[in-house]
Amino acid sequence: MEELTSNQLNKIPISASPFPRIVILGGGFAGINLIKRLNKQRYQIVLFDRNNYHTFQPLLYQVATAGLEPDSIADPLRKQLEPVKNFYFRMAEVFSVDPERKTISTEIGELDYDYLVVATGTKTNYFGNDSIMQNAFPLKQIPQALDLRSHLLQNFEAATISRDEQEIDSRMTIVVVGGGPTGVEVSGAIGELKKNVLPNDYPELDFKRMRIILLEGLGRLLNGMSDKSGEKSLEYLKKFEVDVRLNTMVKSYDGLKVTLDNGDIINTHTLIWAAGVQGNYPDGFPEDSINHGRLLVDEFNQVKGAKDVYAIGDISLMLSDEYPKGHPQVAQVAIQQGRHLAKNLKYALKDKPMEPFEYHDKGSMATIGRNKAVVDIGKLKFGGFAAWIIWMFIHLVSLVGFRNKIIVLSNWIWNYFTYDKGTRLIIRRFVMKNKIME
Amino acid sequence: MEELTSNQLNKIPISASPFPRIVILGGGFAGINLIKRLNKQRYQIVLFDRNNYHTFQPLLYQVATAGLEPDSIADPLRKQLEPVKNFYFRMAEVFSVDPERKTISTEIGELDYDYLVVATGTKTNYFGNDSIMQNAFPLKQIPQALDLRSHLLQNFEAATISRDEQEIDSRMTIVVVGGGPTGVEVSGAIGELKKNVLPNDYPELDFKRMRIILLEGLGRLLNGMSDKSGEKSLEYLKKFEVDVRLNTMVKSYDGLKVTLDNGDIINTHTLIWAAGVQGNYPDGFPEDSINHGRLLVDEFNQVKGAKDVYAIGDISLMLSDEYPKGHPQVAQVAIQQGRHLAKNLKYALKDKPMEPFEYHDKGSMATIGRNKAVVDIGKLKFGGFAAWIIWMFIHLVSLVGFRNKIIVLSNWIWNYFTYDKGTRLIIRRFVMKNKIME
Repeated sequence: MEELTSNQLNKIPISASPFPRIVILGGGFAGINLIKRLNKQRYQIVLFDRNNYHTFQPLLYQVATAGLEPDSIADPLRKQLEPVKNFYFRMAEVFSVDPERKTISTEIGELDYDYLVVATGTKTNYFGNDSIMQNAFPLKQIPQALDLRSHLLQNFEAATISRDEQEIDSRMTIVVVGGGPTGVEVSGAIGELKKNVLPNDYPELDFKRMRIILLEGLGRLLNGMSDKSGEKSLEYLKKFEVDVRLNTMVKSYDGLKVTLDNGDIINTHTLIWAAGVQGNYPDGFPEDSINHGRLLVDEFNQVKGAKDVYAIGDISLMLSDEYPKGHPQVAQVAIQQGRHLAKNLKYALKDKPMEPFEYHDKGSMATIGRNKAVVDIGKLKFGGFAAWIIWMFIHLVSLVGFRNKIIVLSNWIWNYFTYDKGTRLIIRRFVMKNKIME
Repeated sequence: MEELTSNQLNKIPISASPFPRIVILGGGFAGINLIKRLNKQRYQIVLFDRNNYHTFQPLLYQVATAGLEPDSIADPLRKQLEPVKNFYFRMAEVFSVDPERKTISTEIGELDYDYLVVATGTKTNYFGNDSIMQNAFPLKQIPQALDLRSHLLQNFEAATISRDEQEIDSRMTIVVVGGGPTGVEVSGAIGELKKNVLPNDYPELDFKRMRIILLEGLGRLLNGMSDKSGEKSLEYLKKFEVDVRLNTMVKSYDGLKVTLDNGDIINTHTLIWAAGVQGNYPDGFPEDSINHGRLLVDEFNQVKGAKDVYAIGDISLMLSDEYPKGHPQVAQVAIQQGRHLAKNLKYALKDKPMEPFEYHDKGSMATIGRNKAVVDIGKLKFGGFAAWIIWMFIHLVSLVGFRNKIIVLSNWIWNYFTYDKGTRLIIRRFVMKNKIME
């Protein structure tokens, strides 16, 4: 083997290929749909993700509330993309992009690209509030959902041995911030735990003391959906005794005390932060590529000011007359942009002109505990049991991986008929230690 | 509320009861079988466990080898024991016992008992070898199994980006120490991964380089089973290309290099330690209660030299003519001792004399990868596909919790027909940090 220079050594090893290399950052909906449609094309494909699995984010809240095991809403990326030819996966965090040199820099070294596709999605937005960032529970990743699940259960364990009445109240109070789908769905799921599961587990505790408080800065819930769905979700949450406070913002949270903008104080050991997201792009983009924390793209998903760089899914911002603030940051846009870009990259191989992206809105939905959901499909807006059945069906078929569909369906049938949630394991207590000891 | 003295404050709060209090340490097979049979008796029952779940240890190795999700081999103790009246669960580590004062001391305070039942099982025995304790992977608990799963997969990820041939070999070498059921089963499962799963996931790697080495100090495998089963398991492991080395002991392991007692050195990033267990009893027992690291009990499971203290399951050592070295440390003994002690404690309420324990050996078995297992039932000793079907059936019906049976069965059917293992998630990389950050 020839001696490599230090510059060459810092390059991530990938086999040489006569085809142009497409580097894709992020194995979410946008990334995997792009890659699947690029199979057998004359490209070398390299995917980077910091995890070795795809996360089905719409069901993360069910992992956090003991309804599903984490393995059933995640799918290993290598397995998922096994059929794709000329494909390489690298598990690594990507630090920065150099669009001039056409290189990315990662925790495992550098890599050159011919085309770069940024599909890194979003991360939790704490709006610069350090006290919230340090003490609140976000809900964007599987380890975070597991952490929250353990934390919720540990609070009830601790409440059974406390003699301090204020502490017991605080441990039995859960504050959720953000009235979007995540906030509404997690509040409903905790409401269901309160009604059907926790009182059986902790007969020593008085569950009249348990409080679930949902805070929303705007005057309504589910702002991305119809007025009717917003109102219905409020009505359903009330049935689960969720205390919904609209037009209310959080000023700070020290881990025990939430201070609201109206001066009110809520004592709680648990603040779930679902109030906003921000783009999760690597460093190195020119200033005019960034707009509202997302990567500004044209109608072909090309990033402004960065040649041969594309952005798809939640991270991209495509402005149009129909969507003057960009598309909603939902799975459907990511899936459609991934597939559309695959088509355009195939055109590029044949020197055909690219086609502009057009979003086909298939509707939106949210579920609020057992038997209840709201659905907007075009002009059709409805709630209740039928909406809940549709919600379950759509989520089941959208799950990545056939094994996951079976396991999630088994769990849902089990949960439905037993009124139980099966996966109430506390595994966090060992997590803090460097080595897991007996 | 009256002021409590500091002595009273240190007591764990449990409601007062007119009935005698039985404190049980450990929610394994022995503990839960005892408690279920004590339902509706005139006792107050308090269970301590450091986890809030029961672990089905016989299938831990399948969690470590990506065949099952952790949630399907664990069952929340509160849920499992919900039907039991006058029952309290406390999640806490128990430090010591004071048989004179009839008190236990735990991480959440002290508690008095009328009867104490120690059912704390065993922990990994490193035989005082610090280098092994620090660097090897044990396989006794769910977080350990998850840790090993992540570690195995991380090694293959790292091998794909390494240019150091020796490092690649070391990352693709797995050494298992201990030829008992755990060592044999985990070796077989890794053999199956090598044959059916990993080459599809990592087409860049040459799996002829992957080595699985099983080390056993004695001259045979599965020492607790028949000669025939020992030989058959060796034959099956060879089919999975496991390099079995009998009469071989490990001297040290620094995380990269295993040194054997014959002076040989094996380079490996992974040493799985399944070479032995030791009793996991709390401090405070008089010296003559301890024998071979277990609690010495009479034929009623009463601990020698500690009045009103019982020990059941793996932690207990009951010497008899038939079992001069005590019973084997297996689930069946634990289950039978738990049920038998429940009967004797019911007799105690009626001032009837206790009955001595008698073990009914229902046989033993081990599985070695797909389609292969060995079974000893009385004089019947056989292997192969029939044994494998029996192994699956027995493990399925023994699993605690109906939900777990469904999920495990779904996984096994999936694994069987697809030759795949579905749960290949690396979640350890976040575990080291105190807070899980995006």
